[in-house]
Amino acid sequence: MNILYDERIDGVLPNVDKAALLKALQQEVPDLDILWREEELKPYECDGLSAYRTTPMLVALPRQLEQVQALLRLCHARNVPVVARGAGTGLSGGALPLDKGVLLVMVRFNNILQIDPAARTARVQPGVRNLAISQAAAPFGLYYAPDPSSQIACSIGGNVAENAGGVHCLKYGLTVHNLLKLEVLTLEGEHLTLGADSLDAPGFDLLALFTGSEGLLGIITEVTVKLLPKPQVAKVLLASFDSVEKAGRAVAEIIAAGIIPGGLEMMDNLAIRAAEDFIHAGYPVDAEAILLCELDGVEADVHDDCERVREVLQTAGASEVRQARDEAERVRFWAGRKNAFPAIGRLSPDYYCMDGTIPRRELPGVLKGIASLAHEYGLRVANVFHAGDGNMHPLILFDANQPGELERAEALGGKILELCVKVGGSITGEHGVGREKINQMCAQFNSDELTLFHAVKAAFDPKGLLNPGKNIPTLHRCAEFGAMHIHAGQLPFPELERF
Amino acid sequence: MNILYDERIDGVLPNVDKAALLKALQQEVPDLDILWREEELKPYECDGLSAYRTTPMLVALPRQLEQVQALLRLCHARNVPVVARGAGTGLSGGALPLDKGVLLVMVRFNNILQIDPAARTARVQPGVRNLAISQAAAPFGLYYAPDPSSQIACSIGGNVAENAGGVHCLKYGLTVHNLLKLEVLTLEGEHLTLGADSLDAPGFDLLALFTGSEGLLGIITEVTVKLLPKPQVAKVLLASFDSVEKAGRAVAEIIAAGIIPGGLEMMDNLAIRAAEDFIHAGYPVDAEAILLCELDGVEADVHDDCERVREVLQTAGASEVRQARDEAERVRFWAGRKNAFPAIGRLSPDYYCMDGTIPRRELPGVLKGIASLAHEYGLRVANVFHAGDGNMHPLILFDANQPGELERAEALGGKILELCVKVGGSITGEHGVGREKINQMCAQFNSDELTLFHAVKAAFDPKGLLNPGKNIPTLHRCAEFGAMHIHAGQLPFPELERF
Repeated sequence: MNILYDERIDGVLPNVDKAALLKALQQEVPDLDILWREEELKPYECDGLSAYRTTPMLVALPRQLEQVQALLRLCHARNVPVVARGAGTGLSGGALPLDKGVLLVMVRFNNILQIDPAARTARVQPGVRNLAISQAAAPFGLYYAPDPSSQIACSIGGNVAENAGGVHCLKYGLTVHNLLKLEVLTLEGEHLTLGADSLDAPGFDLLALFTGSEGLLGIITEVTVKLLPKPQVAKVLLASFDSVEKAGRAVAEIIAAGIIPGGLEMMDNLAIRAAEDFIHAGYPVDAEAILLCELDGVEADVHDDCERVREVLQTAGASEVRQARDEAERVRFWAGRKNAFPAIGRLSPDYYCMDGTIPRRELPGVLKGIASLAHEYGLRVANVFHAGDGNMHPLILFDANQPGELERAEALGGKILELCVKVGGSITGEHGVGREKINQMCAQFNSDELTLFHAVKAAFDPKGLLNPGKNIPTLHRCAEFGAMHIHAGQLPFPELERF
Repeated sequence: MNILYDERIDGVLPNVDKAALLKALQQEVPDLDILWREEELKPYECDGLSAYRTTPMLVALPRQLEQVQALLRLCHARNVPVVARGAGTGLSGGALPLDKGVLLVMVRFNNILQIDPAARTARVQPGVRNLAISQAAAPFGLYYAPDPSSQIACSIGGNVAENAGGVHCLKYGLTVHNLLKLEVLTLEGEHLTLGADSLDAPGFDLLALFTGSEGLLGIITEVTVKLLPKPQVAKVLLASFDSVEKAGRAVAEIIAAGIIPGGLEMMDNLAIRAAEDFIHAGYPVDAEAILLCELDGVEADVHDDCERVREVLQTAGASEVRQARDEAERVRFWAGRKNAFPAIGRLSPDYYCMDGTIPRRELPGVLKGIASLAHEYGLRVANVFHAGDGNMHPLILFDANQPGELERAEALGGKILELCVKVGGSITGEHGVGREKINQMCAQFNSDELTLFHAVKAAFDPKGLLNPGKNIPTLHRCAEFGAMHIHAGQLPFPELERF
């Protein structure tokens, strides 16, 4: 199902002769594994956003740095676009291949090079899975904090490329906050070190610039992450509310009370029912919304914070507040949340997952706005999200086999993102822009800002061959799209109506 | 005293006719306050690094955004270099004026625009003093965490430009970790919004790129910072050691034990004696080194952590561990540390403050190396530093009136920074590169990396008129300097001998 496939690729990609490229690669990098037959290429036609599919021209599966370097140099010399891919779990089509380009799959770089407990760092290859880092660090009482829901499968290189978040990023930050150093290769095959083993590196902060750049600036070949000591204890509270607005207000009040939970997640009735039906987590199926609030740290501290949070929740109008009685119940509470997406998948033939981020204070109003938009478009929307950091994941339920539903879902999704931008938020929290949200970037940034992005891109990749058509739209695309520009967070913007 | 003045300015700056520029400014921006007489310009000839002095051609003191914009456009059109300056407390000559350029002083932009306790943010103009933000947030139980020693005077715009740190950045991060959004103007007068009110903004992370860019990319016109709830309680421990190496090891062990102190500072005997003589803080003057370790948070937590830290310190060989008995003693303990620089100033006619950062595990070895280098060069070095994050401030004592001492001090400083780079550290922690450490940047980065810095610079400022000669050296300068390149953290590098 290609629900949102957009066949335009920005700019004019050079024509590449597949046979000639394959021959050149086989000659110049003879030990490099290359897939080129149609049936071999098929599994790589999409990442976690299966709505977009393109068969890559060639897939390269290098094992050594020298192979990557030689491949990049060859593609640079021959003007062949290169799309990098890790585990392919991304949700915005950031690793969507090009039919005129090479898909560079980095999964075989999967060694943990060093765990340094004194410096509290791990030095790993980009194909190492997120969870594998924490597992390797566990014997030292350490772990790697960012935990996207796909952490069992997703690779750290992809996490860096998308600046991945997770349930715990409210307290522990996004990927960028948990990195020390990157080794990267430019398309010209130059080797760069970004960041340093120490806290702050001089010069421009290219480490942060590179993080979340979605494969547009270079290829990640090594990652040094920070490790954290595992908290002594973690407790979770489950609060029920008779309205989503009340739950939204409670979130803002917990934060305003000076408490920083390890995780603070919200689900609305549709999501609660779906998850309960699937996982039997013990959720209150009659509640309009629930909050899951995890507190972690040392025993005494967590005990005090639980009491304070309970008080805030009750004052905010929670109809019930329960603390998980034991570790088994705590795990069950989280299992419901972590499986909410597949649970929704059982309710509806298709769903479309949004990823807007808004200032916390806007939660109640935006939730109300989403409900009213859903009603207007005649579609159901389930809300499951990282409430603490204002990162919303509205899931639009639809059936692509019903005429017009797909279009309505897309239109509703656009309206929801507009709403996020309108209240000073942004069109993506942790899933990235990729291919999916490239049009909305025209709404998020003005032409001066986009021009600057292109100039920064050109500093790394003057030929524009790295992952073209993702993340940063061309001005041409924005113009075609309606040249709409809402300056970040400013109100009012009647231009929105042109969206 | 121009101890380290370097009369070379990178690149060829255009010749500017002062009278013509003044006339044009007076005509096109009639309400802009401009200083142009020699005696008016004198107070602006240096920032906090008084060793470097240059009289600016003109000083502009705008009050309104439109004046800044008009000034920038005019300078851009006429190819006039522009150096931005906040409070002028920087320690690396980042705001050193150019005799062929305009010094743009932003101190009059000193309004706190908004404190939002629910979002825990403050929106301020760039000339607002660091401490003034915390004072304005205090009624809400909030504060702004980064606290450079100059916080009573330094401005937030300068903090952003230098990515300032402070005593508490081990726990709470550098400036970049405490920012949400910047409004900036390019030299062409274009207005850009970097970052967003929400946690993560899409597109490249230009907010982080801009932070610490030392005035090379644009002019900061508004800053939105994160605020934190004030910790309930703070306690400080003072530990004495009979060797600096032991104290260095204790630092690594506190961190390895999973404790993150609010502050973790170290002073050696020379610094202890100087501070005690000046402040009467109650320091043990016979100790070879002391550690000050502050623990903050909720009461029970801090109590437990104090006990754990005490144990680690004793195991690490501390000869004495004292906890400040009351708030007055706690403040006294910190006053000694915070006044260590002026205290050293009473011991020696001149001193030269270094700012290297190293991985924590290297502390004992580097301290030993500094002692041995000091002996070799026949100069005294006092060590006062942010031990917890490996940010060292060795102070080289010398007398510029003694023939040859200045040169020996400079050479010793260079050797100490080399040592930092050699163990995987960097040439600056929190003071920035500025004018002072521009040669050492040739040691920190290779020519590919420097070329990339220049390309990023060109994306923002193609004419290279913003703060030329600071932060990023030209390749020409590096070649002249000996073309030395040590790839970050790699060993061995015999090239160091050419330094």
